[in-house]
Amino acid sequence: MSRLKAAIVGATGIVGQQFILALQRHPWFTIAALAASQRSAGRSYGEALRDAPDGSLQWYAEAPPDDNIFDLPVENAADLDAARFDVIFSAVESDAARTLEPQYARSTPVISTASAFRYDDDVPVLLPSVNDDHIGLIDNQRKTRGWRGFIAPNPNCTTVGLAITLAPLAQRFGLEAVVMTSLQAVSGAGRHGGVLGLDIIDNVIPYIAKEEEKVRRETCKILGHYTADGLQPAAIRMSATCTRVPVLEGHTESVLALTARPATVSEARDAFNCFGAEFARLKLPSAPQRLIIVHDDPFRPQPRLDRALDDGMTTSVGRLRADSAFENGLQYVLLSHNTKMGAAKGTVLTAELLVHRGYIG
Amino acid sequence: MSRLKAAIVGATGIVGQQFILALQRHPWFTIAALAASQRSAGRSYGEALRDAPDGSLQWYAEAPPDDNIFDLPVENAADLDAARFDVIFSAVESDAARTLEPQYARSTPVISTASAFRYDDDVPVLLPSVNDDHIGLIDNQRKTRGWRGFIAPNPNCTTVGLAITLAPLAQRFGLEAVVMTSLQAVSGAGRHGGVLGLDIIDNVIPYIAKEEEKVRRETCKILGHYTADGLQPAAIRMSATCTRVPVLEGHTESVLALTARPATVSEARDAFNCFGAEFARLKLPSAPQRLIIVHDDPFRPQPRLDRALDDGMTTSVGRLRADSAFENGLQYVLLSHNTKMGAAKGTVLTAELLVHRGYIG
Amino acid sequence: MSRLKAAIVGATGIVGQQFILALQRHPWFTIAALAASQRSAGRSYGEALRDAPDGSLQWYAEAPPDDNIFDLPVENAADLDAARFDVIFSAVESDAARTLEPQYARSTPVISTASAFRYDDDVPVLLPSVNDDHIGLIDNQRKTRGWRGFIAPNPNCTTVGLAITLAPLAQRFGLEAVVMTSLQAVSGAGRHGGVLGLDIIDNVIPYIAKEEEKVRRETCKILGHYTADGLQPAAIRMSATCTRVPVLEGHTESVLALTARPATVSEARDAFNCFGAEFARLKLPSAPQRLIIVHDDPFRPQPRLDRALDDGMTTSVGRLRADSAFENGLQYVLLSHNTKMGAAKGTVLTAELLVHRGYIG
Amino acid sequence: MSRLKAAIVGATGIVGQQFILALQRHPWFTIAALAASQRSAGRSYGEALRDAPDGSLQWYAEAPPDDNIFDLPVENAADLDAARFDVIFSAVESDAARTLEPQYARSTPVISTASAFRYDDDVPVLLPSVNDDHIGLIDNQRKTRGWRGFIAPNPNCTTVGLAITLAPLAQRFGLEAVVMTSLQAVSGAGRHGGVLGLDIIDNVIPYIAKEEEKVRRETCKILGHYTADGLQPAAIRMSATCTRVPVLEGHTESVLALTARPATVSEARDAFNCFGAEFARLKLPSAPQRLIIVHDDPFRPQPRLDRALDDGMTTSVGRLRADSAFENGLQYVLLSHNTKMGAAKGTVLTAELLVHRGYIG
Repeated sequence: MSRLKAAIVGATGIVGQQFILALQRHPWFTIAALAASQRSAGRSYGEALRDAPDGSLQWYAEAPPDDNIFDLPVENAADLDAARFDVIFSAVESDAARTLEPQYARSTPVISTASAFRYDDDVPVLLPSVNDDHIGLIDNQRKTRGWRGFIAPNPNCTTVGLAITLAPLAQRFGLEAVVMTSLQAVSGAGRHGGVLGLDIIDNVIPYIAKEEEKVRRETCKILGHYTADGLQPAAIRMSATCTRVPVLEGHTESVLALTARPATVSEARDAFNCFGAEFARLKLPSAPQRLIIVHDDPFRPQPRLDRALDDGMTTSVGRLRADSAFENGLQYVLLSHNTKMGAAKGTVLTAELLVHRGYIG
Repeated sequence: MSRLKAAIVGATGIVGQQFILALQRHPWFTIAALAASQRSAGRSYGEALRDAPDGSLQWYAEAPPDDNIFDLPVENAADLDAARFDVIFSAVESDAARTLEPQYARSTPVISTASAFRYDDDVPVLLPSVNDDHIGLIDNQRKTRGWRGFIAPNPNCTTVGLAITLAPLAQRFGLEAVVMTSLQAVSGAGRHGGVLGLDIIDNVIPYIAKEEEKVRRETCKILGHYTADGLQPAAIRMSATCTRVPVLEGHTESVLALTARPATVSEARDAFNCFGAEFARLKLPSAPQRLIIVHDDPFRPQPRLDRALDDGMTTSVGRLRADSAFENGLQYVLLSHNTKMGAAKGTVLTAELLVHRGYIG
Repeated sequence: MSRLKAAIVGATGIVGQQFILALQRHPWFTIAALAASQRSAGRSYGEALRDAPDGSLQWYAEAPPDDNIFDLPVENAADLDAARFDVIFSAVESDAARTLEPQYARSTPVISTASAFRYDDDVPVLLPSVNDDHIGLIDNQRKTRGWRGFIAPNPNCTTVGLAITLAPLAQRFGLEAVVMTSLQAVSGAGRHGGVLGLDIIDNVIPYIAKEEEKVRRETCKILGHYTADGLQPAAIRMSATCTRVPVLEGHTESVLALTARPATVSEARDAFNCFGAEFARLKLPSAPQRLIIVHDDPFRPQPRLDRALDDGMTTSVGRLRADSAFENGLQYVLLSHNTKMGAAKGTVLTAELLVHRGYIG
Repeated sequence: MSRLKAAIVGATGIVGQQFILALQRHPWFTIAALAASQRSAGRSYGEALRDAPDGSLQWYAEAPPDDNIFDLPVENAADLDAARFDVIFSAVESDAARTLEPQYARSTPVISTASAFRYDDDVPVLLPSVNDDHIGLIDNQRKTRGWRGFIAPNPNCTTVGLAITLAPLAQRFGLEAVVMTSLQAVSGAGRHGGVLGLDIIDNVIPYIAKEEEKVRRETCKILGHYTADGLQPAAIRMSATCTRVPVLEGHTESVLALTARPATVSEARDAFNCFGAEFARLKLPSAPQRLIIVHDDPFRPQPRLDRALDDGMTTSVGRLRADSAFENGLQYVLLSHNTKMGAAKGTVLTAELLVHRGYIG
C-alpha cells in the first residue's frame, strides 16, 4: 500500500521527538507534517528546537533523527488542516489537546498521548493486546459526536507497565486489589516545566501531581469490560504512590497484586510469559517479540540495563514472589520504558492495530 | 560524672566514622580506643583510612572529625581488652560480630550495629522510645549467658524509620498489616563491597540481599510484647520490597499500614506528632527535639532537603492520606537518615538510655 | 548601631534565597523588604515560591529560612521606593538590572549579582580583600552619574574563585597568562531556565553561553590597577573553557597560571596561605577565618566534601604543582561555593566592607 | 579464511567484557577461550561474574553477551597454553600483565590494555591510523627478546582521544605544547577498586593516580618518530590534569594545543575531518566510518549524546576555536568512548591492522 500520511502535533517536546524516531522510517506511515504551538510555527524544526535561553538544541531522544528532519517546517497546530492526513499523532499538553483534538477528529483519527479525553465514557484508553476489544467504543464515539475521525488516547506512562502486567493476572486469576509504588524517570516530566537537575540529583521527590489518580482510574478503565452498552471499569481496589528518582529513562514499579483465585509463582510466571502471544503473531511493525519478559535474577530489572529491550517495547518483570502479608498476594517489580512503550512508540503500536482493524487508512 | 570510657570497634567503616562524629564531643562518653581488623591495627587512624588502591582518604562522613582523631592508634579488635571500657560500640560486619561481641560482653556492654545477634531470643533490638521496656530482656540475657556485660544490637537502618513510624499507629490503633517499598541510599551499603557509581548512576537496583527479611523480622520483634517470660513478636503481616536508588544519604519508604481500628488522617497525624514526648523530656544528649515530624507539603520529605533535620535524628513523615484500596488503610512516605538515626548516632542514643536506666556505667 | 535596612530584589530566585539566609540573622543588616517581578508581587513570599506548574515549593537553599520569612509580603521590584532602605541587594536577571538598578541607585547603594553594569568604566567589580582599593571608583561613579547611591556588582561566580586564587600569585610573582577549565555546578544556572535533570544526569555540557568571556574580562578588571584617573585592567592573557557537570553546588576549576617571576610550589603555597590575613583582622560578620586554604591530599578539594567550609566562604586549593609544560607555570585545582562566596553571601561580605569604609549606612 | 583463534585473558573485568562484545560476532576472530585469575578458574563465565558479596551478576557492558557466552568455562590465566591461540587479548591488571604477557608472547601475539610494557623501548603503543609505522618496532622486539609472538599494548583510555586528535594537528602544523584537563567517566576505574557511588554522586574527584604521567609519556611516544634505530618520542610539552566526574561512559577532555606553525580554525577543522581517510579505506571490521567528527554546535560533544557514535569508535571534537591567550593556540573539547575506542574495541581494531599487515595469523 502507499504509505499513510501522518502529522505529528506537539512535535518539539520529548514525546513528539519520540514520535519522530518511531515514524521516520515506518513501513506504513510517512511523516507528512510537524506542528507545534505558534511560537515554533513558521520556523524549521531544527530552529524551533533552539528556543532555550542559551540557544542549545533541545533534542532529548537517545539518537539523532534522520538528516532531513531538522529542515522540515513546523506548522501552527491551531491552523492545521487535519483533512490532509490519514492520522494525527498528538503529543500536546492536556489543555491544548482539549481544543485541538476535537477539531482534528472531525475529519481524522487522532492518536494522542494527552490525558484530556481519557476519562470520557465514549473514549477508549487502548493498550495493545490488553484491551483490543475496547476499539468498539470508537464506533460509539463517532456516532455520539458525529465525527468522521475519532480520539484514541494512550494511557499515562506509569499506567502502561502496570496495566500490561496486571492484564494476564486479571485474565487468569481475577484481580482484587493492587498496591503500587513507582520510581519514575525524569524524562516523564517532559521538557517544559521538567525536573531541574538541582531538584533531583541526590534526591527523591515523593509526589507527582495528579499521577496517582490517573494510574488508579486508567488501570480500572483499561482492564474494564466492554459491551455494546459501553465500558464497565474493573472493580479493582487500587493504591498508588508515585515518586521521582534520578533516572533518565525507565519507570520502575514495585507491585503487590491480590488475585481473586490462588496463583502460584510458577503459574504467574507462566501467565506473564504467555501474554500477548496471539498479538505477536500479527507482527505489527512496532510490536516487540514479547510484550513481557520475566527475569529470574533478583537484581533485575534495572532501568539502565533493561529499558532498551526490543527498542523499549518490552516490559520487564522481576522479583516475582508470593507475598508474605496477604493471601493470594503476588509481589513483583516491573520496568517500562516511559517514552517508548509508555508514550510515543506504544501509541504508534496502537495506531498500527487500528490500521489492521480498518479504523485508520 | 567523669566521662564513660567508650571503645569503637570497626572504626574505619562508614558506621564507625559516624560513631566518631557522634561521640567525639559527647558529654557523657569519651573515645578511649579505636579498633579494627588486623589489617588496620598498629597504624594511626588516618593511615588506616588510606588503604584504597589509590591511597585516597576513605573518610565518608559529611564533616571531618576533630583534629586529634586521625592520630589515634588503631588497635586490633581481636585482642581488645574489653574490661578497660565502660561500653563498646561495635560497627563490625556480622561475621566478625559473631566472634567478637560475645568475647567483649563477658565484661562489658556492647552496643552494636551488626545483625549477628538481633534474632536471638534473649537479645532485645532496642529503638529508643519505641520499646524501652524491652531493656528488661538484658537481665534474662545476662542470667542465661553468665555475662557481666551484654549485647544490645540496633535495628537494620531500613527498619528504624519504619518501626518508629509504625509504633504510634500500633499503640493507638493496633496494626494488622504493612506494605512497604524502600528507596535506599548508597551509604547504607557500606564501604567494603559498596555500590559502585557504575552500577547506580542513572539506575535503580530492585533488590538488596537479605534486607526484606530483616525488616520483616525486626519490625515484629521491636513492636512485640515483653513480659518476664520473654518477648512475643507482634503479629503484624509484613510485606517489604527494598530497592537502591542514586541517593547519598537518607532512606525513603513508601508505606501502607492497615490498622486494627479505624484511624482518620487527622488522628494519625496527631499520633505521629505526639510520639516520644515523654522520651524527649529525658533530654538525652543525642535525642532530637521531636522523634517524628509530619510534613503537609506533598512534595516532602525529600532526602536532600530533610535528612539532616536535628542532625539526622528526626524521622520525617509526609503524604499522609487514607488509602484508596484498603479499609483502615493509611498511606505515608517516610524519610530516615540511615547513617545517623538509622545507625551510629541512633545507637549512641540507645546507649544514653541504657546509662539513664543504669545498665551502662 | 541600629541595624541597616536592606531590601532584597529578585528574592524568589536561587541567589535571592541565599541572600535571605545570609541576611536573616545578620548583626548589621535587617531584611526590610523582599521584592520580585510583578508576577510574584502582592503575594506572600511562601506563595510566590509555589509558582511551578505542579505547585511545589521552589526553595533551593540547603536549609529552610527562619519561620517568619515565608509570611513576608513580596513587593513589586519596579515600584520599589528605594529611599526607604540603606542598601539594596539585587539578584535580578541582567535585563531587569539594567532598568531597575540605576533607578534605585539614585538614592541608595545597590549591591548586585547581575552582570549588567560590570563592564562600565566607572563601576568596580569588588572582591573583598582582592581589590579593596577599587572602592574609590564609586566616587567617580557618583560624580559622573549624579547619584546619591551607586551600583557595585559582584563578579560572576566562576570568576570569584579564580580571581581570589590568582590575586596572591599576581601580587607576589606577577601574572602573565592563565589557562582555566571549569567544572561548574547546576545551581549556577539558576531557577528559570535552569539545567534539566534530563540534560545533566550522566553527562557533561561543554559550554555555558557567555561565561568564558565574562571570566576573562572580569578577572582582568578585578586584578587591574586603580588610580584617580580610573581603572586599568591587568594585562593577563586569559584562556577559559567553562563546562557544566552533575554537581549540585561548588564550582571546580583546573588552573594553569604562568607567573612573571619564578615561583616554587612552596612559595605559591605560602602566598595562598597568607592571603587575606589583614582583611581577616577586620572580622567582618560574613568573612571566613581564611579566604584560601591549601589541601595537601591530592584527592582534594572535592565539591561534596569541601564546598561548605566556613559556610561556603573559604576557597579551597589543591593539587598545587609545578607545571610540566611551561616555565614559571603553576598548576592547581580550586573549589569555590558558587552560591555562597560566589554569589549572595560573597556580596553581603562586600556590603560589610562598604559599611566599614563608610559607603553604606 | 578460517577464523583466527583468540583468547581473552582478564575476561571478567569491564574491559574483558567489552572484548567479548567486540569479538563474539567478529568476522575474523573467534573466541576460543576465556581466562581469568585462579578465583574464577574452573567455573562457568556466568558463575564467575557472580562473585560479589550479594551474588549479583557483575556484567557491566551496555548490552548482554550472546547466549552461549555465560556457559563458557573460565580457564586459569596462569596456566594458559598460549600456543593454542593465534592471538591473545589481555585485559588483566598491570601487575599480572608483567608476569603473564611475556609468558604468552613466547609463542603468540599479545594485544593488551595493560600499561605494564607501554614504556619499554622495544614496545610500540599502537593507535590505528596515528602511528601505524611504529608496527616496525615489533620486529625489534622479537629479535631482542627471542619471541615468536610479541606484546602490543594499547594506550591509556585518556591518551586515546587526546593522541587521535593531536595527530592531525601535529602532522599539518607541528605541535609545541598541550594543556589538557580531563573529565573522566567512572567506567574507566574498572571493577575491582572502582569508584563508589558514595564518592562520586554530586561530586568531582580532582585526581586519578598515575593518570597524568601516563597521558604525558604515552602521547609523546605515540606521536614520536620511528626509524630502524628505534622510536624517538615527540618533543611536545605536555600539561595534564585528570579528574573524575559522575558520568558512566565517555571521557571529555578540554584541550589547548599550541602548534608550531599558525593554523586557522578552518584549517584545523579540515585537518580533523580529513584525518584517517586512507585508514578508513582499509575497511577493517571494527573501524568507524570516520575517526574524528567535528561538531559546530557549541553544546556538543556531550557524553550521553555522542559517546555511542559508530559504536563508540568515533572521537568527537567540538568547541574548536582560536585560543585567546596564546599565539598559535587552538582550543577544543573532545569526547572519546573510554571502554570502546579507548579500550577493548580500539585494541581489537589494532589487532585487525596487525592481521592486515601480516603480524597476526
